[in-house]
Amino acid sequence: MKFDVLKKSANTTARLGILETSHGSFQTPVFMPVGTQATVKTMTPDELKEIGAKIILSNTYHLYLRPGHELVKEAGGLHSFMNWDGSILTDSGGFQVFSLGKLREISEEGVTFRSHIDGSLHFIGPEISIEIQNALGADIIMAFDECIPYPANYDYVLKSVERTTRWAKRCQKAHNNIDSQTLFGIVQGGMYKDLRRKSAMDMVSLGFKGYAIGGLSVGEPKNVMYEVLDFTVPLLPDDKPRYLMGVGSPDDLFEGVTRGIDMFDCVLPTRIARNGTVFTKNGKLVVRNATYAKDFSPLDLDCDCYTCKNYTRAYIRHLINTNEILGIRLTTIHNLHFLINLMKQIRKAIKGDYLLQLKDEFYSNFGIYQEVNKK
Amino acid sequence: MKFDVLKKSANTTARLGILETSHGSFQTPVFMPVGTQATVKTMTPDELKEIGAKIILSNTYHLYLRPGHELVKEAGGLHSFMNWDGSILTDSGGFQVFSLGKLREISEEGVTFRSHIDGSLHFIGPEISIEIQNALGADIIMAFDECIPYPANYDYVLKSVERTTRWAKRCQKAHNNIDSQTLFGIVQGGMYKDLRRKSAMDMVSLGFKGYAIGGLSVGEPKNVMYEVLDFTVPLLPDDKPRYLMGVGSPDDLFEGVTRGIDMFDCVLPTRIARNGTVFTKNGKLVVRNATYAKDFSPLDLDCDCYTCKNYTRAYIRHLINTNEILGIRLTTIHNLHFLINLMKQIRKAIKGDYLLQLKDEFYSNFGIYQEVNKK
Repeated sequence: MKFDVLKKSANTTARLGILETSHGSFQTPVFMPVGTQATVKTMTPDELKEIGAKIILSNTYHLYLRPGHELVKEAGGLHSFMNWDGSILTDSGGFQVFSLGKLREISEEGVTFRSHIDGSLHFIGPEISIEIQNALGADIIMAFDECIPYPANYDYVLKSVERTTRWAKRCQKAHNNIDSQTLFGIVQGGMYKDLRRKSAMDMVSLGFKGYAIGGLSVGEPKNVMYEVLDFTVPLLPDDKPRYLMGVGSPDDLFEGVTRGIDMFDCVLPTRIARNGTVFTKNGKLVVRNATYAKDFSPLDLDCDCYTCKNYTRAYIRHLINTNEILGIRLTTIHNLHFLINLMKQIRKAIKGDYLLQLKDEFYSNFGIYQEVNKK
Repeated sequence: MKFDVLKKSANTTARLGILETSHGSFQTPVFMPVGTQATVKTMTPDELKEIGAKIILSNTYHLYLRPGHELVKEAGGLHSFMNWDGSILTDSGGFQVFSLGKLREISEEGVTFRSHIDGSLHFIGPEISIEIQNALGADIIMAFDECIPYPANYDYVLKSVERTTRWAKRCQKAHNNIDSQTLFGIVQGGMYKDLRRKSAMDMVSLGFKGYAIGGLSVGEPKNVMYEVLDFTVPLLPDDKPRYLMGVGSPDDLFEGVTRGIDMFDCVLPTRIARNGTVFTKNGKLVVRNATYAKDFSPLDLDCDCYTCKNYTRAYIRHLINTNEILGIRLTTIHNLHFLINLMKQIRKAIKGDYLLQLKDEFYSNFGIYQEVNKK
């Protein structure tokens, strides 16, 4: 993997970069659609390419359970298994197993957990996470970390940060495919400035080729997340990609980019699409609502995605109200296109030194994205 | 609408025809995918075109309930509403309301029924069926008929046939868009030869531009259906299209074509696709089964559909087992392609006078399609 910063933003910490993996190169900042179970829900790889996706994320925990990493390896790896020849990043499984709540137990060795599918008992530690990710063969893989809940007390977070560092070292040691897969470290530390600093220093001292900021967008207010970014990003090396995990509302993308983040992923666009909610330049629109029953305009008036070029709000509402799959296909295409196109505009604005203007204009139209049932 | 017989089969009653509507022309025999709620489940119109679909069927009953025919009319008709510029045929709603069982009551006027969605009370008779179909604006529309259950006693079927004829006349009278929409009559009569004859004579005397054979594939053995076709098809005019309603297993297509049928529709290919079952030249294949967990070959070895060109059985099985929508998209594409391609081969065989050879070869590989849970 190769990463170069092409240009730094004049008035913000944003930068335009280029990231090259053995499955192609793409400019950063970049949004990565999430393909949890070796598929970005409802989409074909061809459709992902059509909307400009260059890198997608897939989940170690889910693929370990089904179909199993050994099977994916036998298929020639994840790219071949799912017929996607662009870049892939896999997470470590950490976030998912910690999200299981009472179904899991943490020790120094790793995490024992019960499958959410059949309750069967499993264990993933740093070595196994890397073994799974080596079998899956993604271009970028992640260190196995502990993702703590919010809020969490200082002592717990301190112990967790120390363990996450020890686990990161074990991941480095276990990583076998150094030539074809790049391992990123993850900075944790909750909302505590000195623990984020400690975690960042620890990770940087281990010398990763990229750094993620984990444990954000876990229920804390947006301004708390932005503050953590304010003091964490400057601790990371300038010449390495910085990845903000699990964050992807349109306003958060602006806030992350202007603070120096290069990579984002989030299930938000695909998840809300399946619920009949879409992004428009004027904010979110719940196309399921009766208001749109006879609205024969496209989801977003001057969007050029496949959905907006061909279908009306009235038709999409009908499809979603009658549980027709085409409905959530069309909203998914639109939402992913929206974020990928937004990132394209952001990159152009970094290049042309008008990022803050673009951001102001965006906020005056779109506003802040707030989820009604934010977990 | 214009219909011409281009060639008659040398050794069977099959014929190659061309049917022209205001939304394009296509050769017959033809298979029409079913788009119940203004969408062929899981598919975009572009994907339908890619597999060679020229005409699709949509359901009056469902569109009347949701989104309502007036709304579809406001959208510019069904073609515009669903973004499909090929031909469309709508059924009359008869089959659906009669399938409601205890939720409906028949009188000379029409059928009073309760919606399967919310239990609300509705009435559809011949005039309303045509009014709805005129609003939807399909190229071919169907007379409102009574579709009787199997088995049914002679006296009931006789009365029903007489009523269906009276209803057909009322449909003709009610039909307003004679220039842009062609009304087909439907021959009923259960499994009784003389009642099929009576119904056919009645319908032909009314002078429709096309004739459907209804009330088949409703639970009777296959050989009974074939026998009904044997004595019914010859009663229909040679120069008008003949449409066998609701029939579409691969073997039934051969049996229908060789008996002189020009048009078919069936939910079978799309329904079984969503259940993880696909057609292959060697018969049906349940790709959900564990047998295919590590099978990295395509669904059908020399199929050239999008699914078979790009995905393996192992991947599709994984998608279906994890309830991923892409799985049933891929099986749907394959199954519809299979039937549309089969019809293409059949047309070629009629032209080249080797239809019976093709049929023999088909049976020796594919066999007979039997559903496990046939309704």
